[in-house]
Amino acid sequence: MAAAGGGRRCRRLEGEAARAVLGAAEALLFDCDGVLWRGEAAVAGAAEALGRLAAAGKRLCYVTNNSSRTRGAYTEKLRRLGFPPAEPRHVFGSAYCAARYLRQALPPGAAAYVLGSAALGAELEAAGVPHLGPGPAALPGPAPADWARAPLDPAVRAVLVGFDEHFSYAKLCQALRYLQRGGGAGCLLVGTNRDHRLPLEGGAAIPGTGCLVKAVETAAEREAFIVGKPNRYMFDCVVSEFNIDPARTIMVGDRLDTDILMGNNCGLTTLLTLTGVTTLEEVQGHQESDCPARQSLVPDYYVDSIADLLPALGD
Amino acid sequence: MAAAGGGRRCRRLEGEAARAVLGAAEALLFDCDGVLWRGEAAVAGAAEALGRLAAAGKRLCYVTNNSSRTRGAYTEKLRRLGFPPAEPRHVFGSAYCAARYLRQALPPGAAAYVLGSAALGAELEAAGVPHLGPGPAALPGPAPADWARAPLDPAVRAVLVGFDEHFSYAKLCQALRYLQRGGGAGCLLVGTNRDHRLPLEGGAAIPGTGCLVKAVETAAEREAFIVGKPNRYMFDCVVSEFNIDPARTIMVGDRLDTDILMGNNCGLTTLLTLTGVTTLEEVQGHQESDCPARQSLVPDYYVDSIADLLPALGD
Repeated sequence: MAAAGGGRRCRRLEGEAARAVLGAAEALLFDCDGVLWRGEAAVAGAAEALGRLAAAGKRLCYVTNNSSRTRGAYTEKLRRLGFPPAEPRHVFGSAYCAARYLRQALPPGAAAYVLGSAALGAELEAAGVPHLGPGPAALPGPAPADWARAPLDPAVRAVLVGFDEHFSYAKLCQALRYLQRGGGAGCLLVGTNRDHRLPLEGGAAIPGTGCLVKAVETAAEREAFIVGKPNRYMFDCVVSEFNIDPARTIMVGDRLDTDILMGNNCGLTTLLTLTGVTTLEEVQGHQESDCPARQSLVPDYYVDSIADLLPALGD
Repeated sequence: MAAAGGGRRCRRLEGEAARAVLGAAEALLFDCDGVLWRGEAAVAGAAEALGRLAAAGKRLCYVTNNSSRTRGAYTEKLRRLGFPPAEPRHVFGSAYCAARYLRQALPPGAAAYVLGSAALGAELEAAGVPHLGPGPAALPGPAPADWARAPLDPAVRAVLVGFDEHFSYAKLCQALRYLQRGGGAGCLLVGTNRDHRLPLEGGAAIPGTGCLVKAVETAAEREAFIVGKPNRYMFDCVVSEFNIDPARTIMVGDRLDTDILMGNNCGLTTLLTLTGVTTLEEVQGHQESDCPARQSLVPDYYVDSIADLLPALGD
């Protein structure tokens, strides 16, 4: 693709360049949905490509904004779909990373009020962070004065917002009350990610965690700390656990505003795959723009599918 | 109060100036909560002040962002708290104004999907706008694919977001699906107001409609049309029904970012009362700022309470 000025230029990764780029890499970070699989179907050839990368001694890690699954659920899904064996410690989901963040940021014994799934609760449990909140909640009475009088857990020092199919006004109310305690300074606000929508097969989409984070931020009148992509916290987690070198790491993803932006911001080589939500036209639009914010969404390379890496990976 | 430069300057409305300003006014628009009453208690002297204004032949209208009450409920509350008699047509609540907007904007027979109260439904009913949505809603199955397959009403051509204590992920999901139909062009997105919080007595607060509007806007990736203050649509409704002259109209309110901003934007004389959510220090901060956006939040006048107008209104 032609670049307008001196900005980033996205090239198809193939042939000699593919062999050179992959050969120099020590680690690859993979987004999952839209890259390795779509729903319950593996992307054709993806498992074989990852198998060859693993056989070549590359470190493979999985980085996902999805907060509805535990690390264990991801390794199980990788196994089920035929990907090379992975351990839970290779999976950096936003549920795990949020739990890790809170374990470090909260004083001992402090708890989190969670708008999120049972999986998010499980990762907090595994990290030793006390929590309450997952599951449905009802308003504690008919009138606003009742809502503002419901019991609060004195141990809560953080509100954590992830994907929550039980999100409700009742929970929003309770979140605001925790966030207002002690003038607001005594309670952290953390979000797993800002994705606006979650795409489903067939073009449908459902609202993403970003909608819920925005609702809580608007009530609290402050900004959440976001652990997921494009923020670098998720990458920092990988670095601190595996000591990888950004200059020898490739970020592989299907979303420009999360996967590619994080990779570019962290100094990684970025590779877009077109099996997910992004078209080449979108890349071209950003590439031809003079706007630095849009330039930062342009990946270094693209492939139609990560199966296209197979020829560069030998047998 | 001293002004930094040539910007708007807020003065206490008293003595000769109060007689002159009130004498020249033909109409007064009153915000309600924090101005005329707090919760169920009338502001002391407020009813008497309005009684004298009415006796002096002033047109009195009531403009409120609250979407949880009908026009009739407001006239009943005014009566109950001893205010001069008002008819429903003098009350411009965001529920009524939203219904009026949709009656004009929607083609005949088109319906609205409503995230809001029974009162919002009642105003739509009164305006002849078919609607569905008020009340609790559950997700139509355990999996995202189920959520994206729930039946949609083919008549829906607008999503209307007001205060909704039954707001839930299920409703957010359904709203997004309506907003995506026909590429999004076939469905309006309307919000009653953007208030972040609703203050309760004793310093507590609950999340306001603005939180819910933000959640829907984030999912839909577009901005809602807002009928309530500070947008001028609510004032335009008053003008079109009573033909009042902005230059001879006073907007009386307790919030700078809704009441006073709308009044200033519409060329009204603006009067802040300190019985609600605003302190004089906040006004001073805006007044001393060089920022045009902050200057537009400075009222022309302030009073501690609208009862302070009594001396200027004779007996």
